[in-house]
Amino acid sequence: MQHLKNCQGLAQVFLIRSQSSRLSKSVIPSLSVWDGHLPCRWRSTGGHGRQKYFNDRLPKFRFTLAGLLAGTGAVLAYKLHQDKVQWAATSAQLRVMQTSDLPVYSLEEVTKHCSLDTGVWVTYKGGVYDITEFVAIHPGGDKILLAAGGALEPYWALYAVHQQDHVLEILSEYKIGVLNPESYKKQESANPLDPYSAEPTRHPALQINSLKPFNAEPPASILSDNYITPSVIFFKRNHLPVPRVDPEAYRLEIEGLSGGVVSLSLSELKSRFPKHTITATLQCAGNRRSEMNAVKQVKGLNWGIAAISNATWSGARLRDVLLYYGFGPEVAAKAKHVQFEGLDRDVTGTAYGASIPLNKAVSEEGDVLLAYEMNGEDLPPDHGFPVRVVVPGVVGARNVKWLGKIVVSDEESNSHWQQNDYKGFSPGTDWDTVDFKSAPAIQELPIQSAITHPAEGTSVDRSDREVTVKGYAWSGGGREVVRVDVSVDGGKTWHVAKLRTSDQGEHPAPPPPPGRAWAWKLWEIDVPIPHRAQELEIVCKAVDSGYNMQPDTVAPIWNLRGVLSNAWHRVKVKVTEGFKDQK
Amino acid sequence: MQHLKNCQGLAQVFLIRSQSSRLSKSVIPSLSVWDGHLPCRWRSTGGHGRQKYFNDRLPKFRFTLAGLLAGTGAVLAYKLHQDKVQWAATSAQLRVMQTSDLPVYSLEEVTKHCSLDTGVWVTYKGGVYDITEFVAIHPGGDKILLAAGGALEPYWALYAVHQQDHVLEILSEYKIGVLNPESYKKQESANPLDPYSAEPTRHPALQINSLKPFNAEPPASILSDNYITPSVIFFKRNHLPVPRVDPEAYRLEIEGLSGGVVSLSLSELKSRFPKHTITATLQCAGNRRSEMNAVKQVKGLNWGIAAISNATWSGARLRDVLLYYGFGPEVAAKAKHVQFEGLDRDVTGTAYGASIPLNKAVSEEGDVLLAYEMNGEDLPPDHGFPVRVVVPGVVGARNVKWLGKIVVSDEESNSHWQQNDYKGFSPGTDWDTVDFKSAPAIQELPIQSAITHPAEGTSVDRSDREVTVKGYAWSGGGREVVRVDVSVDGGKTWHVAKLRTSDQGEHPAPPPPPGRAWAWKLWEIDVPIPHRAQELEIVCKAVDSGYNMQPDTVAPIWNLRGVLSNAWHRVKVKVTEGFKDQK
Repeated sequence: MQHLKNCQGLAQVFLIRSQSSRLSKSVIPSLSVWDGHLPCRWRSTGGHGRQKYFNDRLPKFRFTLAGLLAGTGAVLAYKLHQDKVQWAATSAQLRVMQTSDLPVYSLEEVTKHCSLDTGVWVTYKGGVYDITEFVAIHPGGDKILLAAGGALEPYWALYAVHQQDHVLEILSEYKIGVLNPESYKKQESANPLDPYSAEPTRHPALQINSLKPFNAEPPASILSDNYITPSVIFFKRNHLPVPRVDPEAYRLEIEGLSGGVVSLSLSELKSRFPKHTITATLQCAGNRRSEMNAVKQVKGLNWGIAAISNATWSGARLRDVLLYYGFGPEVAAKAKHVQFEGLDRDVTGTAYGASIPLNKAVSEEGDVLLAYEMNGEDLPPDHGFPVRVVVPGVVGARNVKWLGKIVVSDEESNSHWQQNDYKGFSPGTDWDTVDFKSAPAIQELPIQSAITHPAEGTSVDRSDREVTVKGYAWSGGGREVVRVDVSVDGGKTWHVAKLRTSDQGEHPAPPPPPGRAWAWKLWEIDVPIPHRAQELEIVCKAVDSGYNMQPDTVAPIWNLRGVLSNAWHRVKVKVTEGFKDQK
Repeated sequence: MQHLKNCQGLAQVFLIRSQSSRLSKSVIPSLSVWDGHLPCRWRSTGGHGRQKYFNDRLPKFRFTLAGLLAGTGAVLAYKLHQDKVQWAATSAQLRVMQTSDLPVYSLEEVTKHCSLDTGVWVTYKGGVYDITEFVAIHPGGDKILLAAGGALEPYWALYAVHQQDHVLEILSEYKIGVLNPESYKKQESANPLDPYSAEPTRHPALQINSLKPFNAEPPASILSDNYITPSVIFFKRNHLPVPRVDPEAYRLEIEGLSGGVVSLSLSELKSRFPKHTITATLQCAGNRRSEMNAVKQVKGLNWGIAAISNATWSGARLRDVLLYYGFGPEVAAKAKHVQFEGLDRDVTGTAYGASIPLNKAVSEEGDVLLAYEMNGEDLPPDHGFPVRVVVPGVVGARNVKWLGKIVVSDEESNSHWQQNDYKGFSPGTDWDTVDFKSAPAIQELPIQSAITHPAEGTSVDRSDREVTVKGYAWSGGGREVVRVDVSVDGGKTWHVAKLRTSDQGEHPAPPPPPGRAWAWKLWEIDVPIPHRAQELEIVCKAVDSGYNMQPDTVAPIWNLRGVLSNAWHRVKVKVTEGFKDQK
C-alpha cells in the first residue's frame, strides 16, 4: 500500500473494503495483488481538494456508481459520450495503436497526472491519454480514477466489456502521446496478475459469450437432451472473477435479525438445518437476447436460447435459517427485503449483490434455499461453491453465488444490479429517456419457451411426412407450464405438444403444489409436414397456470437492455424432396 | 308432486335435492313452483327400465352433466349435433312456428311420451317434437328428460342460451306434429311462474348480454370514470336466478374441518371475526370475448371490454374463519381445495359451485374474504347478498355469490363450472377434440388492459394535436401493473401512460405488498397525433410485476369458449381536418 500513502481518497476506499469485508479472510486473496500495483501516486499537494472530491462522492463512488463499471452494465451509458464524439472513419483499434508525431512520455511523467487537480492521464498499449474531461461522463463513474497515472489494462482485464471497438474509439479521442519504449516495457513486465487466472476449467461444449467474466451457454441442440441439466453444461453467468473459497474458513454473515450479527460456518449450515432438495430451473434475464439484437442493437451479452438450465439443488431453507436466528413478527414489521452479497468482488471491494422481497424469503411456499449441493454434489466453483442462494421462480440474477452475507432490511439491495440493471422498459424508452427508478427490479420471470430441435436453417425430408419438434418451457413465480402450442406454418394453425417432467423412460415427477412449479417442462411433438410447403416456420408458445401467454413478436417487447425476451420462438427449416428416396 | 307419483327416477332427483339442501330454508323458494308444474306423467308400466336408466345415470345426472344445461355452458356441445343436421335455408324460427300438414295431437297424447321407453316428446309454441334420438346428444345431458311429455318453455325460460336460432334449428328437425288449439291454450295458461320474476331492479345504463340469467356490463365509456366502480354499474355475471335470501334465516355451512359441520349465522360471521377490507378488481373469464368472436365464432356471452370492475369489499377473512373452526395441520395434510356452493340453484337443486386451491384460501397473503359489504354497504342482491366469496386475483367465476356452503376437501369442486367450463385451450382445439380434463380450471388471470377512451369509430381533430387515451389495466395473482404502453400507429411506436390508483384529486392508494396488488390501475396519456395520419390505430398493452406481457393478436389465443381474451386492445379513430377551426 506504499503508493497510497498520500492518496487519502483512494486509501479510504480500500479501508472501507477491508473493514466491511471481514469475510474475505475465507477468500483466497487473488484480488489483493492489486493493492501493490495501483498506479496512482498522488502527492500531498492539492490533497485537500482531492480529499473533498472523494469525500463528497464517496457514497456514490461506493454504491450508486460502483457497479456501473462492473459486468456488462458498464457499456450502458456510453451514449452520454456519443453526443461528443465525432466517429472516426478509420478503425478504432488502429487509431489507438498507431505511432504518430505525438509527444513521447516517460512512465514517471504519466504518474504525475493521477488526479483531477493534476489532470488524469492513463496509458493503454503504449499510448498516453489525458482523460480528465472524460471522468465526469465515464459510465462507470469515478472508479476510472483508480487507473489515473497508470495503465488501463489491469482494470479492463476485469471487465471484458471494455474490449469493444466503440470503447477504443472513445479512448482514441483523448490520445496525447506515447510512452517511451523503456517505460512501456517496464509497465508490461509490471502488469498485475490476471484476476481471472484462477478460473475453473470449463466444458469444451460450452458456447462462450464472454470469457472474463465467464458467460457461456450449452449448445441448444443438447440442452433438452436431459431433464436435469448436467452441471458442467448448465449455463454459466458470472459478473466478476470466480472467488476461490476455502470451505473450512468460510463464514456466512447474517444481519438485520433481532439477535445481532450471525456468523455461520459451512458445517453449521449443513448440520443445524434440515437438508431440503428442490428441482428448479434458473434463467438469465438476458436469455434469447440475440433475438432482440436482431430487431435493434441492445446492450448486453448476446445470449441464444440456452441461458436457462434445470438442476436439483440441496441446502438449508433460508426460512429455517432466518427463523432460527431470530426472525419474527418484530423484524417482519419493519423489514421488506432480504439482501444477498456474494464473495465475488470488484477492484473496489464491492461485492455482487441482489435482494428479494421478504415474503418470498420467509414463506413456507417460497422454497428459497441456501444451497450447497447441485445435482447431488458440492456446488461447482462456477455455480457458487460453497454456498449460493437458489430463489426458485425468480430471475437468475437474484440467485447470488458464493454467498457471503445476508441482510434482512427495509430496503432493496442498493447494488448496481438491483438498481440500475435487470429491469424492463418500454420499446419507446431509450438511453436518453430511461429512468431506472421507474421500473421494478425483475424478480419473477414471465412464461418462456423455445425450440431446441430442429435447428434454424436445417432441413426436413418430405418423405418423413412428419417433423419432430422439441424444446423447453418454463415460467417464473412457480407457475406451472400447462400447455405448449406448436405451429409449423408460422402461427396459422397450432398443435398441442406432449409435456414431460423427467427423462424418457423415467417416472414423471409428481405434480407440484400450486404456485410451486419451479422446474421446466420439456416437450415434443411430431407435426405433419404440410403439402406443398417448401419451408416450415416452426413456432412455439407456452401457457402457464395463470394462463399467461408469450407475446407474438419481439419488436413490441424490445427494450434497451435486451432482457425478458420471451416472444414466440421461431425456427425456419427447408423441406427437401425425396432426399431419402434417392439414396 | 302428484304428477311424479309414478316417476321414481325424477322423484329421486327431487328427493336428493330436498335432502341435500337444508340450507334452502333460508331461501325464499321461488323455484319450488316447478314441482307442481312438471309435465312428465310417467306411468308405472315400463317403470323398471326407467328406474334402471336413472339409477345407472344418476351420479352423472346429478354432477357431471348437471351443470351442462345451466348458464352459457349449455350451448357448448351443440357441435355434436351439427354433424347430423342439414341446415335449412329458411329461418329456423319460421320452421318451428309454421303450420303444416303434420298430425295434430292432444296434450294427453303428448304426455304419454315421457320416457326413453315410450319415446320422448316435447312441445314448443304449439309444435310437437319427438326428441327421443336427441336425448343422447343433448349438451345438457339427461336433464332434457325433465321436459319429456310436456312443454320446453318453462325450462328454456331458465336458460336464455336456448333462445338462439341454431337451437331452434336443431329442434325443428324433430317436429312430428302440432298441438290441437285447446291443448295449446291449456298449456299456455298452465305456464309456471318465471323463476326470474323476482330479479332486482338494474341500472338502465347497463348493457345487457343476457337477461335470464342476468349478465350485463357498464358502457366502456363510463367504466374508467371511477377508480372504485359504483355497485350499480359493476358488471353483473349471474349463472342462475338471483336467490332472495332472508338474512335472519341465513346460515353458512362449513364442512371438512376437524370439528364437524359448522352452521354460522350472518350475525355470527360479522361479530366473531375481524372485519377486513380490500380493494379488488373482479373480471369475468369471458371479458373481451367479442374480440374472439370477431376472429371465429365462440360459445358464450358476447362481452365487450367491461366485464371487469373494481370495488372495495369488507368481510371476514376466510382464513380466520377456517382456523377458528378447526383448520390445522391435520386438515392441511389431506385437503387441497376449498369448495364453495352458492344458494343459486337450478331446477334439479344443483347449486352454482366452484373451488380454489387450499393455499390461496388459508394463506395470510391470500386475502380471501367472506364479504358482506361492497363499497361500504350491504352486498346488493346481484352481487351475492348476504355473503359472497371474494378471491382477489382470481377469475370472477370462483368468487361465489350467495354463499351457502364451504367444503374443505382433497378434491376440486365437481361442478360443471369448475370441471367443464372456465378452462383455456389451444386455438387448434375444437369441440371434436376438446378434453376438459386436459386443462386446469382457470384461477389466476393473465395481464389485461383495454382502452375506454376514445371509442372505436369516433374521430379526433388534428388541430388538437394530441389525442387523450384512457383505459384500465389489471393482472391476476396479485401481480401489480407496472407499466402500460400505448401506441397510436398500430404498435410501431410506443409511449408510456401515467398510472393511477385513485380517483383524480384523491390520494393514491399506498403501494400494495408484493404479490397482493388486487386492484386495477387506471391509466391516461396524451399522445401526439402523427403528421399525415388519416386514421389512428390506438393500441394498449400492459406489463405486470412478473413482467408478463399481453399477446399481440387475438387469433393465436382464440379458444372455443372465448375465455382469456387479453391480446392488445385496438381502437381505430379517424383524424378529421380542422373541424374545430371551421366552426
